[in-house]
Amino acid sequence: MIHSFLMIGQSNMAGRGYVQDVPIICNERIKMLRNGLWQIMIEPIHCDRPFTGIGPGASFASAWCNKNETEEIGLIPCAEGSSSLDDWTVGGVLFENAVFQSELAQRTSKLDGILWHQGENDCNPEGVNHYYEKFLVIVETLRRRLNVPDIPVIVGGLGDYLNTGKYGRYFRDYSLINKVLLEFANTQDNCYFITASDLKANPDNIHFNAKSQRIFGLRYFEAYDKRINILEPMKEEISKINELNNKPLSKAEKTALIGNEFGKGNMSLEEYEEQLSKVNDKE
Amino acid sequence: MIHSFLMIGQSNMAGRGYVQDVPIICNERIKMLRNGLWQIMIEPIHCDRPFTGIGPGASFASAWCNKNETEEIGLIPCAEGSSSLDDWTVGGVLFENAVFQSELAQRTSKLDGILWHQGENDCNPEGVNHYYEKFLVIVETLRRRLNVPDIPVIVGGLGDYLNTGKYGRYFRDYSLINKVLLEFANTQDNCYFITASDLKANPDNIHFNAKSQRIFGLRYFEAYDKRINILEPMKEEISKINELNNKPLSKAEKTALIGNEFGKGNMSLEEYEEQLSKVNDKE
Repeated sequence: MIHSFLMIGQSNMAGRGYVQDVPIICNERIKMLRNGLWQIMIEPIHCDRPFTGIGPGASFASAWCNKNETEEIGLIPCAEGSSSLDDWTVGGVLFENAVFQSELAQRTSKLDGILWHQGENDCNPEGVNHYYEKFLVIVETLRRRLNVPDIPVIVGGLGDYLNTGKYGRYFRDYSLINKVLLEFANTQDNCYFITASDLKANPDNIHFNAKSQRIFGLRYFEAYDKRINILEPMKEEISKINELNNKPLSKAEKTALIGNEFGKGNMSLEEYEEQLSKVNDKE
Repeated sequence: MIHSFLMIGQSNMAGRGYVQDVPIICNERIKMLRNGLWQIMIEPIHCDRPFTGIGPGASFASAWCNKNETEEIGLIPCAEGSSSLDDWTVGGVLFENAVFQSELAQRTSKLDGILWHQGENDCNPEGVNHYYEKFLVIVETLRRRLNVPDIPVIVGGLGDYLNTGKYGRYFRDYSLINKVLLEFANTQDNCYFITASDLKANPDNIHFNAKSQRIFGLRYFEAYDKRINILEPMKEEISKINELNNKPLSKAEKTALIGNEFGKGNMSLEEYEEQLSKVNDKE
């Protein structure tokens, strides 16, 4: 049985890190949901925009696989770029889609956690003041509707770079959102907060870059695994990421990656078959 | 109100044409559904595989826009690569996801048509023999559940190249599937068949190439628009495709394409802002 995780929130959960900036993560025990079915994960995991890239999901799942050496993990991508907390209202399309996709996933997996990252779009006094109560309704309703009353919810903080740079004026209150998210984690059962401290942004100064998303995913996993808040950058984050990158590829993983290149038209039929037979010969 | 179309079936409806092989289609009146919300379409429209490419949707929608000069069209991508007709059983994840996505779309659009392409996975005597009855249940249930009893359903034929080439032995009965699809169109109300005659494949000899998908989309539109079967290649298909390619881009379209390149990390912040200001200056 696959252990599944729902990913919701706005663009930094969907992922905007540039795919070309980090080594591929490919692990046959990491699946992603498409049309209600599981397939081997190849990033991007989300499809909310044509330019969706690296989010926290892949390194979260890799760390999970290191801990759970024989089982499979499935990621349910439902985050939507630029969405405000009000866009996630119960009954709205984003919320209902997330519930429905999770229900499809539950037919063939056990829903084990919810990963949340959202708040850039609520960085204003009104947004801050009502964040706790609005988010509570979302979390309580998700848990009830999906029949997972005690499921861990891991909430990620907003980037410390947000109030600098070109669009900084829109994010002046980002630290107040982080305060509410931490307060939420401290006062609600089975909720944990992870800091975005030290993480870096794309040139837009809005979105975590790919390397930082890899680190962020590790923090999400650490909070999930230990059931603790992560309030400071973790020791050895970088070396742990390098370990993930050095994992040798299995036959199934090589086959998936070769199939992806052939499917995109980056490889001739002859080259494809040659590479496939090499993979098979080596086993 | 957006006029929406549900796209279902297997890989050739999802699209496997190489994106680099055809000029971009970008039209601010063509939307695609993501997480239950509409956004300006940038191909690929489907996300069923990491290597999804060009399907019939974009040129179908372009032709629709030429006919409907002020209105908007929305595409609902729910096809799944390699799916058999049994995978589309009522109650299964593919079917239920297609119904749910259509219901989300119906909150903000009028569902006007269903585009179907499927059958490669049923090219065997058993598959052929039960195709009509199984497909009828799918069509009738979709129409009832979505409350669109008379909605046109356009079914596309399988490629004539299928029984040649490397994997030809799997598709020996492809012409029998085409026969059933045509019979279905001839005997069911508001159903129309379009031929795949003359269309060409990728090197895999399974998937329509990008140029052929552009033509296929025009045939889907012609059948929808005229409420007729298309049994032969249409005159002037190529010149109509060239017309689509020559459409000048609006400000919104240029902005979307520039934003896509910036979002992918293919452009610096300075270059992005320079290009944006050029677009704005010109208006």
